[in-house]
Amino acid sequence: MSGEDASWSGEVRVSAPGKVILHGEHSVVYGKRAVALGLDLRTHLTVSAAADSVSLCLPDVDISKTWSLEELRALWKQMGGAQAPDAAPLADAQAALLRSQLPTGAGLGSSAAYAVCLSGALLTSQGRLDPGEGRANLEKVCRWAFRSEQIIHGTPSGIDNSICTYGGAVNFKGGASTPVEVPPLQVLLVNTKVPRSTKALISGVRERRERHPSAIDPILDSLDALAERGIQALHDLASATRDQDRAAAHETIAELIEINQGLLCALGVSHPSLDRLVALAQANGLRAKLTGAGGGGFGIVVEGLAGKEDVAKCCLDLETHGYQVWRTRLGAPGFTIHHAQ
Amino acid sequence: MSGEDASWSGEVRVSAPGKVILHGEHSVVYGKRAVALGLDLRTHLTVSAAADSVSLCLPDVDISKTWSLEELRALWKQMGGAQAPDAAPLADAQAALLRSQLPTGAGLGSSAAYAVCLSGALLTSQGRLDPGEGRANLEKVCRWAFRSEQIIHGTPSGIDNSICTYGGAVNFKGGASTPVEVPPLQVLLVNTKVPRSTKALISGVRERRERHPSAIDPILDSLDALAERGIQALHDLASATRDQDRAAAHETIAELIEINQGLLCALGVSHPSLDRLVALAQANGLRAKLTGAGGGGFGIVVEGLAGKEDVAKCCLDLETHGYQVWRTRLGAPGFTIHHAQ
Repeated sequence: MSGEDASWSGEVRVSAPGKVILHGEHSVVYGKRAVALGLDLRTHLTVSAAADSVSLCLPDVDISKTWSLEELRALWKQMGGAQAPDAAPLADAQAALLRSQLPTGAGLGSSAAYAVCLSGALLTSQGRLDPGEGRANLEKVCRWAFRSEQIIHGTPSGIDNSICTYGGAVNFKGGASTPVEVPPLQVLLVNTKVPRSTKALISGVRERRERHPSAIDPILDSLDALAERGIQALHDLASATRDQDRAAAHETIAELIEINQGLLCALGVSHPSLDRLVALAQANGLRAKLTGAGGGGFGIVVEGLAGKEDVAKCCLDLETHGYQVWRTRLGAPGFTIHHAQ
Repeated sequence: MSGEDASWSGEVRVSAPGKVILHGEHSVVYGKRAVALGLDLRTHLTVSAAADSVSLCLPDVDISKTWSLEELRALWKQMGGAQAPDAAPLADAQAALLRSQLPTGAGLGSSAAYAVCLSGALLTSQGRLDPGEGRANLEKVCRWAFRSEQIIHGTPSGIDNSICTYGGAVNFKGGASTPVEVPPLQVLLVNTKVPRSTKALISGVRERRERHPSAIDPILDSLDALAERGIQALHDLASATRDQDRAAAHETIAELIEINQGLLCALGVSHPSLDRLVALAQANGLRAKLTGAGGGGFGIVVEGLAGKEDVAKCCLDLETHGYQVWRTRLGAPGFTIHHAQ
């Protein structure tokens, strides 16, 4: 549909990581610092040229849609798409196939990873990313992904599309996110399989704070400090050259995880399934916390310098108790173009 | 041995409650507020006249000692006892028999209850308490008990002998304790049977605070606020006249217990046995926290307005998991003279 160019007839393959909150869930709502990291459960998108339609296939969530170019042209005009500033032209006839390792609706950034892949792939296929302009290209991808997130979520914080675009880690405070260099951090991502309502959990914290401001406000301050120390510990780990410094950084990370989980319990957002997860990890010498809204949902266990056997034993214990476990890493690379033709 | 009077030939029976910390363990070390309550597991002491010796029989801890009056007279002189201000004369030949429902060495004030009983019974048998001078008498008992605690513990905080003398509740901050009027509070006192070192736990918190002051200091502030709100909630419960106000106060007490336990986890003083205790209580709709130093030791479950069946079920669950459970109440009356002749 880009009038000026010859039709594109190639294939683009891209991927983006998911997102995990290491510190700052809930307190971020009150303007405190949060630290999010790229999660190495990636979303892959392949966009290839097609005859006269645009199709979208998301087998992991059982969605398969096809629109004729004619339909889309009408919609495009109706929406005034061509007049929008920085508007990418609507893509040529093409088929998009998305596969994701990420569970959806889990607070792990699945929609942002999707949005990043889609905007990145379309910008690539339309030749809108300049070779050699790494950072500028990522900014463009991130900006478009944010628009997609706005359509899906209304008023997204911007944290998810940032981390899914840039990967690594993002230090988020007061609406501004700063990238943080991090080493890969080996974790177990654990699904409690207990559904939760993020909205209800956020309300619960707000009400508890309204009832006991003098007790809850210092907890939010402590969570802010924990996020700051968490970034410092990641930085220490990244720059450690000696084994003992690496070990010290891992110990600090584990300690901060333990403190954070206690504070989340104090806010009332843990859940028996999460408490059991933490206890099982602890029984294997590992530290764990909920990640995201809590009340069920997901937790992470940091491996630190634990031996393979201990980690394997912890996985087995968790699975035996009905949890779903992924052995993966945080600090994963961001948006990546694997193939563009 | 009181030269001036005829020898006493009667019997005195007294009792004193134990002590439970409701809020403020660990943070009290940093000058924050603590709330301790009288525990209705009482220590009973009977002192009766004897021929020519002083004997002490503590069957619960397998202690039985007898000293001749002659020996004691020599010791008394050697220690300069007669010159001490406010010195009670050494008692006549008598036998003291102590029975206690309190576990010892558990942070439940067993030594203070013993000291209060002993000083109260001796002051009574020696006619040193003035009839009709309730408060002044208790102050005298408390002061003598504190001396006994100094001999046993070196530098006691004064909180234990205060609560075991006055009963009810004591608001303790910066070395000063203020009595607080409280209604009886039904609880389960639970022994994890896991031994702990109070000293090591206190050191652990100090080291964690040294490592992460910006994260730990606000937690101590929150604990201070919790203790203050806890006193308010007890006061609200005491003054509630309507069922709904009583229910609201119980809900607040339970919520503060939950927050407090989360913060103690964040300080690193919980233990798997305590976490399991809390989880078992929670599964029965009840809230629990560790009491005292943590790391094992004892926990309390507040019954609130739970039905008899739920409480019985919780007891059973705890006992099935190997815990020792007492159904008792907090806010117990203080030092009591049951019989004096």
